[in-house]
Amino acid sequence: MQTVTVQQIFRATEKYLNQNLEISGWIRTIRTSKAFGFIEINDGSFFENIQVVFEESLDNFPEIGKLTISSALRIRGTLVPSPGAKQPFELKAEQIEILSVAAADYPLQKKRHTFEYLRTIAHLRPRTNTFAAVFRVRSVIAYAIHKFFQEKGFVYVHTPIITGSDAEGAGEMFRVTALDLGNLPKTESGAVNFAEDFFGKETSLTVSGQLNVETYCMAFRNVYTFGPTFRAENSNTARHAAEFWMIEPEIAFAQLADNMNLAEEMMKYIIQYALDHAPEEMAFFNNFVDKTLFERLENILNSEFGHITYTEAVELLEKENAHFDYPVHWGTDLQTEHERFLTEKIFKKPVFVSDYPKGIKAFYMRLNDDNKTVAAMDLLVPGVGEIIGGSQREERFDVLCQRMEELGLKEEDYSWYLDLRKYGGVKHAGYGLGFERVIMYLTGMTNIRDVIAFPRTANSCEF
Amino acid sequence: MQTVTVQQIFRATEKYLNQNLEISGWIRTIRTSKAFGFIEINDGSFFENIQVVFEESLDNFPEIGKLTISSALRIRGTLVPSPGAKQPFELKAEQIEILSVAAADYPLQKKRHTFEYLRTIAHLRPRTNTFAAVFRVRSVIAYAIHKFFQEKGFVYVHTPIITGSDAEGAGEMFRVTALDLGNLPKTESGAVNFAEDFFGKETSLTVSGQLNVETYCMAFRNVYTFGPTFRAENSNTARHAAEFWMIEPEIAFAQLADNMNLAEEMMKYIIQYALDHAPEEMAFFNNFVDKTLFERLENILNSEFGHITYTEAVELLEKENAHFDYPVHWGTDLQTEHERFLTEKIFKKPVFVSDYPKGIKAFYMRLNDDNKTVAAMDLLVPGVGEIIGGSQREERFDVLCQRMEELGLKEEDYSWYLDLRKYGGVKHAGYGLGFERVIMYLTGMTNIRDVIAFPRTANSCEF
Repeated sequence: MQTVTVQQIFRATEKYLNQNLEISGWIRTIRTSKAFGFIEINDGSFFENIQVVFEESLDNFPEIGKLTISSALRIRGTLVPSPGAKQPFELKAEQIEILSVAAADYPLQKKRHTFEYLRTIAHLRPRTNTFAAVFRVRSVIAYAIHKFFQEKGFVYVHTPIITGSDAEGAGEMFRVTALDLGNLPKTESGAVNFAEDFFGKETSLTVSGQLNVETYCMAFRNVYTFGPTFRAENSNTARHAAEFWMIEPEIAFAQLADNMNLAEEMMKYIIQYALDHAPEEMAFFNNFVDKTLFERLENILNSEFGHITYTEAVELLEKENAHFDYPVHWGTDLQTEHERFLTEKIFKKPVFVSDYPKGIKAFYMRLNDDNKTVAAMDLLVPGVGEIIGGSQREERFDVLCQRMEELGLKEEDYSWYLDLRKYGGVKHAGYGLGFERVIMYLTGMTNIRDVIAFPRTANSCEF
Repeated sequence: MQTVTVQQIFRATEKYLNQNLEISGWIRTIRTSKAFGFIEINDGSFFENIQVVFEESLDNFPEIGKLTISSALRIRGTLVPSPGAKQPFELKAEQIEILSVAAADYPLQKKRHTFEYLRTIAHLRPRTNTFAAVFRVRSVIAYAIHKFFQEKGFVYVHTPIITGSDAEGAGEMFRVTALDLGNLPKTESGAVNFAEDFFGKETSLTVSGQLNVETYCMAFRNVYTFGPTFRAENSNTARHAAEFWMIEPEIAFAQLADNMNLAEEMMKYIIQYALDHAPEEMAFFNNFVDKTLFERLENILNSEFGHITYTEAVELLEKENAHFDYPVHWGTDLQTEHERFLTEKIFKKPVFVSDYPKGIKAFYMRLNDDNKTVAAMDLLVPGVGEIIGGSQREERFDVLCQRMEELGLKEEDYSWYLDLRKYGGVKHAGYGLGFERVIMYLTGMTNIRDVIAFPRTANSCEF
């Protein structure tokens, strides 16, 4: 008698055929007749269920027949061939032990449920096919990202979650405090006295690890972060969450072209990894969630990503301004409709747009020689638009100080960031990848709430 | 001409010997005479520096001689054997391009600095040997943990950072809010009106992902979290930080013994992985930070961890009560002095202590048949004491409800947690591993502030 998982049985069927095996798992479906019955068991280790056949010769045949969905069983039996069936094998039960009987009001009965409903039972939804597939793929891709960077010698840096600077400046931040909000200490002038707070100052949740990770880039050359980031933006869309995970690589002795090469290589790596390591889940998405998925991913794997400058892109887009809700002109930011037109209609594949006007980009991006644009890049992909945003960083102390002055940023708030330019600064570049956006792109799921285990959005922080 | 990293040169010296190579990196030391000079270059890819020799035949020989520490260079030259030297090779420069000149007040000159001082320049300290070693090992171990669990088929779950429940109950929590603290909205009764906050309710930073990850354990069987957790505890010790990372595996169809086996296997795996994948760094720690390190780690690798129940442990410890600051009696929690006595004096190796009195453990731990103890386990290791804490979870709906009632916990606050017991609950277990504690243990570093890139502690939230 060997204790095995369903995954082991599916992955090495030959080895286990005609063997005496023990499995444990949960009932997904059960049908019985007078003399025998079938149970589909999912044991959590594998996307597919295994079929168990049991006969009236079992002592507890009558009790088994009454079992509810999601009840848990331990089954001993023989793995036998099952020619002509959906699966080429089934487990013929010799003994079935009932581990627990699920209450009859279990919400996930056989009928289909809407994603909206399933969000209200986020603690149970990973037991459905769709969410079992989403969250296993999420795990597989998270690992693929680590593997990609680690095998290239990148150092993983845990940049801080609680930050004392609002220098990061991207969007609204959540405050973090240990003060009693019902009884806040005040200064003489009546303001909140943050000197009495846990950190002795005002603190917030990070919106990006980039500035912090640049310090490690100047020590380790190639580094990356992978951690949670936060936005207190009240945008109730299918693509925004208040809490999400981000990957931010940063590479030294490197310029914008190196950055784009890294992003392209990474995207292809993780797509291939997901196809190789979660084949059943990816096939499920292609069959039931987005029938164009494989075509779309194959297109990425097999194309060299396009390259176009912002200025060139605007020239092309301006000709189509009649079709856009927001007409494009040099100096305006690209909207999703423009991004999708570029990648879907013009390039028909992923495309990097580079060298944006400095006026619409952050202070730390490297000023180009034209004095008008910065060495920024966005990766646009069909079906989504922007999936990666990055830049070469301004490594020249004087130029950076001047850009900060133009934007009204104070040098003293960025002294440590400026130190990186004073003490051996070199050309470096990096980008940010929203992890949930990647999961959505690789699964075809269209709402960010359905790729986060317990999503946090405006007015929703359940479980 | 081949562009290479110093890591490539050290790891495949034969391949590069007598080749024309290009490297880029930062000056760690420089010495010159009239006719030639030596530079030790660190390029971030590798712990060791490479020695570069340059001669007066170079155009810019005079400028090079004046360069400051941390200035950045691009060097082209030939890798030549260097018999008898510390390293068996050196790079004979044919061209040296000065990429940037570090300001002369660079704080990391050759002299030794205290760890306390280096904490004040946390953005520069990864450029020192000690912190380069710490943070590369931190990265390597983070990856080893993912690799260990992923190769066993565990699903990585991102449990939420912002939580709406304070059900987790371990220690003081930080509040998260998007309200204007200077102008808080009030209810009619004068309390803070959290209905107007971002999430429509009071929210905090998580102290543990365990309750959330148990929901995924009941779907995927074997799961783990690896993410930041927070404590607003004002304890100014060398072992506590307000923000730290935690790993929490959870396994289904499993009991306390399976949990201990997993913990033992994991500890051995990550130690071996660090020794194999960061040999230079680990040797540095053994030579310069903790001379007993290798002996201690070898002892773990080569021993079967001990097992003792709390009750048996207390019997042994009571005999030694005269030596302890806090005498032990059945029912009291073990202090670090007792834990260290057990693992260092009695077992002389890592030991699991199991089956603690229910009165000193959490509500979710499985009640033993004696009705007095719960199926909890702590792993104690020499030099530290507790490094892992875990338990089998109470899977019996009625018993769990009764425990909650005893402790005054309300069922409605835990309805989703109780659902896991109603709908196919099975025996399951898990543990928590403080990531920084592991790094400290594997490096010999004694202050948690020195194993976190930008530590957050009471009154300190810099960078």
